Amino acid sequence: MADMAGVVEQLQRRIRELEEKLARETGGSGGGQTQRARIERMSPEVTDSNPYSRLMALKRMGIVKDYEKIRTFAVAVVGVGGVGSVTAEMLTRCGIGKLLLFDYDKVELANMNRLFFQPHQAGLSKVQAAEHTLRNINPDVQFEVHNYNITTVDNFQHFMDRISIRQLHVFINGNFNVLTAVVDKACNELGQIWMESGVSENAVSGHIQLIVPGESACFACAPPLVVAANIDEKTLKREGVCAASLPTTMGVVAGLLVQNVLKYLLNFGSVSFYLGYNAMQDFFPTMAMKPNPQCDDRNCRKQQEEYKKKVAASPKEDNFVEEEEEEIVHEENDWGIELVSEVSEEELKAASGPAPDLPEGITLAYTIPDKEQNSIDGATVTESEESLEELMAKMKSI
Amino acid sequence: MADMAGVVEQLQRRIRELEEKLARETGGSGGGQTQRARIERMSPEVTDSNPYSRLMALKRMGIVKDYEKIRTFAVAVVGVGGVGSVTAEMLTRCGIGKLLLFDYDKVELANMNRLFFQPHQAGLSKVQAAEHTLRNINPDVQFEVHNYNITTVDNFQHFMDRISIRQLHVFINGNFNVLTAVVDKACNELGQIWMESGVSENAVSGHIQLIVPGESACFACAPPLVVAANIDEKTLKREGVCAASLPTTMGVVAGLLVQNVLKYLLNFGSVSFYLGYNAMQDFFPTMAMKPNPQCDDRNCRKQQEEYKKKVAASPKEDNFVEEEEEEIVHEENDWGIELVSEVSEEELKAASGPAPDLPEGITLAYTIPDKEQNSIDGATVTESEESLEELMAKMKSI
Repeated sequence: MADMAGVVEQLQRRIRELEEKLARETGGSGGGQTQRARIERMSPEVTDSNPYSRLMALKRMGIVKDYEKIRTFAVAVVGVGGVGSVTAEMLTRCGIGKLLLFDYDKVELANMNRLFFQPHQAGLSKVQAAEHTLRNINPDVQFEVHNYNITTVDNFQHFMDRISIRQLHVFINGNFNVLTAVVDKACNELGQIWMESGVSENAVSGHIQLIVPGESACFACAPPLVVAANIDEKTLKREGVCAASLPTTMGVVAGLLVQNVLKYLLNFGSVSFYLGYNAMQDFFPTMAMKPNPQCDDRNCRKQQEEYKKKVAASPKEDNFVEEEEEEIVHEENDWGIELVSEVSEEELKAASGPAPDLPEGITLAYTIPDKEQNSIDGATVTESEESLEELMAKMKSI
Repeated sequence: MADMAGVVEQLQRRIRELEEKLARETGGSGGGQTQRARIERMSPEVTDSNPYSRLMALKRMGIVKDYEKIRTFAVAVVGVGGVGSVTAEMLTRCGIGKLLLFDYDKVELANMNRLFFQPHQAGLSKVQAAEHTLRNINPDVQFEVHNYNITTVDNFQHFMDRISIRQLHVFINGNFNVLTAVVDKACNELGQIWMESGVSENAVSGHIQLIVPGESACFACAPPLVVAANIDEKTLKREGVCAASLPTTMGVVAGLLVQNVLKYLLNFGSVSFYLGYNAMQDFFPTMAMKPNPQCDDRNCRKQQEEYKKKVAASPKEDNFVEEEEEEIVHEENDWGIELVSEVSEEELKAASGPAPDLPEGITLAYTIPDKEQNSIDGATVTESEESLEELMAKMKSI
């Protein structure tokens, strides 16, 4: 232990040396200048130097009751690409307690058409480059980055361990089909609430989705009905083609995603189960879907059973309206019930009927995968001309 | 013990960071490393080093006919704050031809809850800091920055000169009421198409609006009906309070704004005249409004007359549906007519009747200003409980 303390002291001395050197080289304030000092407590004080004044103002405006609570949450972001990186930046600027980043890709100049990464970071691992930028932006946030592919057996186990930590409350995914299936599997097993997002390969539509294991449809129950297919960029690149992307669409999707996370964590507004974005028409479909009782994932079915028991054991739903003002305790396995109060009876009915009352303009981009394809590594999705009614009928018959 | 190991790891990481920084500052590659080489022609080639591959892919996907055309456009951004800075970054990453930035504010740590600026830029002028970052991101874009307040008499004249340049096609505004009125005045005089955006002081709603002088309502005809009031931050700060803001809401609004700009410039999808964002409900109202024939701005009335003449002289509207495939020439005074084809008869009817068929959930945040207040420097807006019918009746009676 004494040895460890000695090592720490030595390292700290080296940091001071380097900072002084850097200060001399860059003229004046140097290293200290680039990173702001840590802030012990979030304050509502209105000064130019307070990075939290505009966030704490949400309390005075009556939007958020306890903004400081954001520091007690950890969020994991899987896939630090066009949506994931902006998601991480927004959460960092909002002062989230801890961010866990998972990715195994490198920054390329070909990513410069999206927000966040800069040309001088080309060649660095995405998680490393992101951590560096984010730490500079807000040193109050704790970062934990993992430069690996979560879909291999060993990494999957480690990934499961990391997202089992107690203070982790939300889970976010990027734009990868196989990854999404793996995260879905992990979250069903852990009963971990998560959100996923996607952007279509033609760059002009996207969606976000909240998945509450046992309560709402998981990724294996039914992949998102709206928004086009995700494709494996690596395969495409070999063929000399790539998916299109726009910083606009990705920025909007990241914004909607983090907004949903903030609403969920800080308990304001209504949290959306599914929100689509059709950029061509400026059309934003919403919906909610119940889980599939015959879902292929046995953990999903298990979560459904547990959710049913919990609902049966809890007081009648009518009570929830009265309890709205009560502080919501975000504990694992506890909070799922609260979300029920944020979905109206009509919405639930619409989602479970044979043909939800979808607004005009929705186009279908996913077909329900066949049984064989509905596994982690075989998932392929193709564009479909089927009507929603046909799809829902299919789903029912599974 | 595990904690100690974490601390050591963190310190080691910091040392690596400092060493890298020092290497950049002192040795070899230095400044040149941070900036990529200019690219003469946009190429669709799929390589890791091509920053335009994902944008040029929009052509192969059938979304945009001629993406390269983006280099022929100039866009002016007035107000480089939470929305304006992200707007500028998105346009830069998309490879816009030229960006003109107008602002007179300095970067503060209090801005760090929004995207784009970083703590080490605190104290720099916003336009200067923005230009530095954006030039690094994409050296192919031409930048012209003006660190002044456009509302003073001298600066207004200079500003008018700058936005009169021939290749300027769209005009964007930030979140300032007085500025918006000034830009409105300038654009009415010049017949300059522009877009404005705003975010409410409680941070949970926003909007974007396209204004085509003579064809759609200008800011003096009727300020946006949806979304709460803008307030003068300088006044507020003196009183120890400030407006709330969120990187999510501002990111979404900037994304929707630039998406609308791209759709307009590159001729894809349908361009929205008005698109609101209610973050609490995930609700996105759209509408279109005809100009007020009794508008206080005489240049607006003049543009209305000219637009009427143009419509009367042009072929019947029915023809526009057939001409959809024709390439649209974006020349001043020419293109306004094309936009008509993007608004359905129903929408126009709804917008001009006494009570447009607004979707459920719209709340009114603006009252129509009194005649005295409807001047450039006296505009104050207050929250209102009036119904839309009452407001429309008022508007008619002005």
